Amino acid sequence: MGQLNQSQLYAVLVVLGIAILSLVYTFFLRSQILSQDKGTARMQEVWGFIKAGANAYLGRQFRTIVILIGVLTLVMAASVFVVPPTAEANEMFGANATTYVAIGRAIAFLMGSLFSYSVGFIGMNVAVEGNVRVAAASRKGYNPAMQIAYKSGSVTGMLCVGLGLLGGTLIFLVFGMAAPDALLGFGFGGSLIALFMRVGGGIYTKAADVGADLVGKVEAGIPEDDPRNAAVIADLVGDNVGDCAGMAADVFESFEVTLVSAMILGIVLGAASASPNVPGSALRFVVFALLLRGIGVIASIIGNQFVRTDERRRNAMAAMNKGYYIAAAIAVLGFIAITPFFMTDPTTGQVDWRPFLATLSGIILAIVLDKLTEYFTSTHYSPVKETSSASQTGAATNILSGLSLGMESSVWAIIVIGLSILASVLIFSGYSSNATIQFASVLYGVSLTGIGMLSLTGNTISMDSFGPISDNANGIGEMAGLDKNARNVMDDLDAVGNTTKAVTKGIAIGSAVIAAVALFGSFLTDTGKVQQQLGQTPLSGIDVASPLVFIGLLVGGAVPFLFSSLTIRAVSRAASQIVNEVRRQFKIPGLMEGKVLPDYARAVSISTSAAQKELVSLGVIAVMVPVLVGFLLGVEALGGFLAGIILSGQLMAVFQSNAGGAWDNAKKYIEEGNYGGKHSEPHKAAVVGDTVGDPLKDTAGPALNPMIKVINLVAVIIAPIVVTVRVPGQSIGIGVIVAMLLCLAALVWAIWQSKREGESVAVEPSSPVPSAKKA
Amino acid sequence: MGQLNQSQLYAVLVVLGIAILSLVYTFFLRSQILSQDKGTARMQEVWGFIKAGANAYLGRQFRTIVILIGVLTLVMAASVFVVPPTAEANEMFGANATTYVAIGRAIAFLMGSLFSYSVGFIGMNVAVEGNVRVAAASRKGYNPAMQIAYKSGSVTGMLCVGLGLLGGTLIFLVFGMAAPDALLGFGFGGSLIALFMRVGGGIYTKAADVGADLVGKVEAGIPEDDPRNAAVIADLVGDNVGDCAGMAADVFESFEVTLVSAMILGIVLGAASASPNVPGSALRFVVFALLLRGIGVIASIIGNQFVRTDERRRNAMAAMNKGYYIAAAIAVLGFIAITPFFMTDPTTGQVDWRPFLATLSGIILAIVLDKLTEYFTSTHYSPVKETSSASQTGAATNILSGLSLGMESSVWAIIVIGLSILASVLIFSGYSSNATIQFASVLYGVSLTGIGMLSLTGNTISMDSFGPISDNANGIGEMAGLDKNARNVMDDLDAVGNTTKAVTKGIAIGSAVIAAVALFGSFLTDTGKVQQQLGQTPLSGIDVASPLVFIGLLVGGAVPFLFSSLTIRAVSRAASQIVNEVRRQFKIPGLMEGKVLPDYARAVSISTSAAQKELVSLGVIAVMVPVLVGFLLGVEALGGFLAGIILSGQLMAVFQSNAGGAWDNAKKYIEEGNYGGKHSEPHKAAVVGDTVGDPLKDTAGPALNPMIKVINLVAVIIAPIVVTVRVPGQSIGIGVIVAMLLCLAALVWAIWQSKREGESVAVEPSSPVPSAKKA
Repeated sequence: MGQLNQSQLYAVLVVLGIAILSLVYTFFLRSQILSQDKGTARMQEVWGFIKAGANAYLGRQFRTIVILIGVLTLVMAASVFVVPPTAEANEMFGANATTYVAIGRAIAFLMGSLFSYSVGFIGMNVAVEGNVRVAAASRKGYNPAMQIAYKSGSVTGMLCVGLGLLGGTLIFLVFGMAAPDALLGFGFGGSLIALFMRVGGGIYTKAADVGADLVGKVEAGIPEDDPRNAAVIADLVGDNVGDCAGMAADVFESFEVTLVSAMILGIVLGAASASPNVPGSALRFVVFALLLRGIGVIASIIGNQFVRTDERRRNAMAAMNKGYYIAAAIAVLGFIAITPFFMTDPTTGQVDWRPFLATLSGIILAIVLDKLTEYFTSTHYSPVKETSSASQTGAATNILSGLSLGMESSVWAIIVIGLSILASVLIFSGYSSNATIQFASVLYGVSLTGIGMLSLTGNTISMDSFGPISDNANGIGEMAGLDKNARNVMDDLDAVGNTTKAVTKGIAIGSAVIAAVALFGSFLTDTGKVQQQLGQTPLSGIDVASPLVFIGLLVGGAVPFLFSSLTIRAVSRAASQIVNEVRRQFKIPGLMEGKVLPDYARAVSISTSAAQKELVSLGVIAVMVPVLVGFLLGVEALGGFLAGIILSGQLMAVFQSNAGGAWDNAKKYIEEGNYGGKHSEPHKAAVVGDTVGDPLKDTAGPALNPMIKVINLVAVIIAPIVVTVRVPGQSIGIGVIVAMLLCLAALVWAIWQSKREGESVAVEPSSPVPSAKKA
Repeated sequence: MGQLNQSQLYAVLVVLGIAILSLVYTFFLRSQILSQDKGTARMQEVWGFIKAGANAYLGRQFRTIVILIGVLTLVMAASVFVVPPTAEANEMFGANATTYVAIGRAIAFLMGSLFSYSVGFIGMNVAVEGNVRVAAASRKGYNPAMQIAYKSGSVTGMLCVGLGLLGGTLIFLVFGMAAPDALLGFGFGGSLIALFMRVGGGIYTKAADVGADLVGKVEAGIPEDDPRNAAVIADLVGDNVGDCAGMAADVFESFEVTLVSAMILGIVLGAASASPNVPGSALRFVVFALLLRGIGVIASIIGNQFVRTDERRRNAMAAMNKGYYIAAAIAVLGFIAITPFFMTDPTTGQVDWRPFLATLSGIILAIVLDKLTEYFTSTHYSPVKETSSASQTGAATNILSGLSLGMESSVWAIIVIGLSILASVLIFSGYSSNATIQFASVLYGVSLTGIGMLSLTGNTISMDSFGPISDNANGIGEMAGLDKNARNVMDDLDAVGNTTKAVTKGIAIGSAVIAAVALFGSFLTDTGKVQQQLGQTPLSGIDVASPLVFIGLLVGGAVPFLFSSLTIRAVSRAASQIVNEVRRQFKIPGLMEGKVLPDYARAVSISTSAAQKELVSLGVIAVMVPVLVGFLLGVEALGGFLAGIILSGQLMAVFQSNAGGAWDNAKKYIEEGNYGGKHSEPHKAAVVGDTVGDPLKDTAGPALNPMIKVINLVAVIIAPIVVTVRVPGQSIGIGVIVAMLLCLAALVWAIWQSKREGESVAVEPSSPVPSAKKA
């Protein structure tokens, strides 16, 4: 038992091969892009600023987090002395289990964080390399420009899935049944970095964007991307660090975490139903999950080949959708094909179609969430039209309309997610008479739903990265003064990029929640196992009617509100610093006449610092709150806490993202000539809504995705420590109390730190007083 | 067992006497007010419009809901055929139990709804009678005006506590141990009406307020309360129906519901620890709760006598605070005094101080929530100052700042509530070795916390009603052209009223959540009892890790978002109708010259219709969603649903109320001369924030309080039906399926109905296009 059979071993090796293949494909794509023309000297000059800014940001980011990563790697290794290796690990590694597990946890954590960082770093670098080449190619035609933009995005996409698959497969091959331990470390590493990338990138991009707009477009009345605006490069860099690196690391994490929880739950399910006569039966659920991922990657690579258009049609959206649907069809057929070979019941020998159905429901979920996001944020449907119409009575009614539709959209999104969980419940109903196994089967179904919805991650990320790449290309075109034809091509690509970016957001949030629900299931399963080993009564559920658990639920629900509050404030604060800096530079003699170049690096540096400052505070909050709840209120309350965070995190993430998206498009709808068009009173009102929406949709909302996952992972990791230290009936040791006081102090410091900065930056009013309403 | 002993019987009769005393006091106050001077003919003319508008609204409201009340009364009576009388009722009434319980449930429901309606109706009437007399008295001096305003408010306050206490005591005297059944009906009746009053009043008041401001102050540039504005009377009426009737019915409901749950849980606790040798020991927890209430009422009456100031100090706030603190001191002393007599352990004979401590923690909770609300919404502290400062960079940064602080404030509020629940856990730790009883003891503690925080309801409501009364008096003064001295008095009283209104809001929300938590406890206790009677395994907890329960949690969390979305939209829609109507009337020849009076009744009628239209939709949602969740997902999922609603309801209510309060005061802070003062660009930005905040703080946020309670009560009421109909292991009957389809259809209709209206009302843009930014 616990061994792979021959065909399973081959299958896993094939998956490993696919992972490597996708990495090779990544580098092939990259060299294809690098071989393209970089355009004129002026284009390369502008691009040089962007490149330097982007590298400066990621370099600084790396220095901030590398120490934390080092410390946490040691902590992960040392944790083996508090939580000893599992029975499976002991069985596998014998006397050396402690050493193996310590090293395994540390390496897995390091691998997760480096992979996540690489996805962001390399993906962003290629995006930056790509954007100038898109601008150059736009002079040749629509299809060449579009192809380069999409291929640059595909580097991020394929790197993301390649590394995610590589990590999971390697850990499984080395650790086998004992993999969960290391997998958690892998997931945690990835999530933590994703949190940093998302939060940092989100604050950076919106500080630069809001600051540049307020002082440039609104106050000085110069166009967007005007080279005299000192914040314009920071704004372009922001698109890369926020929309590209942040989103990629975030989705990489969901991709990882759903696989991690499918493997953890799959091992439990397999162990319960394995037959000693059927080799490999104990691991069939894990192998199946890996195969699903492998097929998804192959499908993405094939689908990518179909993304092309021609000079007559010039339809980038249709091209990308075609690639996506072809990939989806291939994936589904692949899933069907492998099921009879790798998912048979060891007792009856019958094919078990339930895991396939759960995966399929994930694909459906992805499509429904897409449509839902589109309905609430696209100019083609009534919600955005209503918000545009509300702009006629001023900014206040525009804002109210956006708030109202954002809230409503989160209701439908959560109901769709509820239905997809219900689908798993129904698919796996009557799976086992043992309650624990029945529970694990449903949660395994949920994690397969997550795998299903992320099976086309390669395409999704490619489409998402397409957004900032086209946006930057357009910016370079404006600043380098490209001709009208080329600008038209890029304008169109930019508009398509806005749509693809918006739609990906729905998937990112939905997958984060599904991943968190699956982790929540692993939390219970995992804690129960450790408690059994310790001879305690295993936790059989999370009774939210128990007052302590209910308190945990309340605290958990509050965390997303705290996160959103702090990130929104961070953006406002940094934006006002940018405003002051650009105003200062406007006064430099010769600058406004275009004779002197502004100091772009200063604005880049302000955005970078602002983003970095928050990282530590928010990281501390994400790690400390679950630790405190776990040790002070107990492991069951920690479960309630997780439920609260998932609930309010999902609601707030969708609310903020969709409200922001709707305001953005309500403005665009007016700019298309409705209700008076550009420069009318309704347009000014809509600009206010758009500015309010910016940090909501690109900072606070998206930051909640990795936050939900990080906190869930921290909880799963510390739960064994909590049950070891807080033995029922025994009083808590002095060491724990001291440790908790330190944690509490760290938490208070983090919140205070984040809030204090808010008060230190005073706004220096110019004359006349700037106002978002003077656009 | 189950009988009152001699001293308990006397005590309960004394409480009944106190209830009657407070009603007598109410009518004494009312006649005192009615005997005052009503001022000049012009004042009475203006006031006549307000009075007619207010009566028209309540009359129309009554016609809308009276049918629903009639139907539900029959349903309550008929429910006895699905859920048979409890064992206690059978013991008490023997063969006639079914009849008694049927009549009891129906009458209790009717009593609850009529009492709740009366509190709103009579309270509002007296407030309207009071406002013109405050205006008249303001010509005589500060103290007389302030006294009349406070006394008019006290009528509502004392009526609220008098009727609440009367209902609870009567039901207990008639039904004894069988009281819970009838008490739930009583609570449900009160809550449903409170929901209607809150939602209807909230929509009415803000539609009129926003509409009148947009078209009058902003568009036409005429002062607030200018008699030429057709919406000005609707705005004044709105203060009465929203801030006075709505708030009173809401707090009445919390007052009731905490008592109801204390009695339900007290009966369980008493039954578990009663000693056959100590008569009355089974009912000691119930009697104690009634006595606490009685003492609170007496303390309020005494405290009210100290609310006076003089012409030298002119400090209404200090006067009211003095009355409040004296009442609080008397209440605490009273609680201490009764404990040794009515709260002794029947086995050991020792005095049990735990219930007293839980009550005390409620008083502390009220004070802390007060301070918290004040910190986040008063101009004296940094949050509001930050929002004011953010107005310098325009409306967008003002809005972002308010959103951020609103979110943060909800974090602290929920932590404070969590701590107060923790206090009950600690106070009652080790109470019993039986888990069910231990659970009931903690929840009994929570309901005492609720009783504690509402013990001074008499004062709280008096202070709250003081707000709209002074506001209306000021409006009458403006419209009737009173002299400068009188206007100064009323301006000051109006400002104080704004503060007292804001502070009361924190208490209203906090008490709603505490009441809901206590009800949530009753839900489990009650369901378990019925299941035991049916021979099923009683529900031992709400396992949120169970997928169906988790889905329930998700759906529950979504409901407050849906409610907020619909109510915000209803306000926007009605406000735009008002705008169109006032614009139409401005064109009537002679109106702008003041020669022709506008048709005030039309604006009143628009607000009234808008408010009524939503009542049915929102009422249907509040009743149908728990029914659907209960029958489709089961009773445990219904528990998860309740937890979700409490969590997200509390977060959203505080977020919206405090963000709104902060925007309001940020505007006031600028009007005090900061950042450029009135008519500056920052002021215009702050006006946008204030307008956004209006429906958030006065409609959407407050509507969540009664919604949380109604849904919890519906759940507690239907849970026995759910467990009777959905027997584990048996398939669901066709009747249930049909019923559920009907419920679903009703729900879909309600949401569609509420949304549809949104699209039918087109905004008719005037020329120039109106905008909130032209203040």
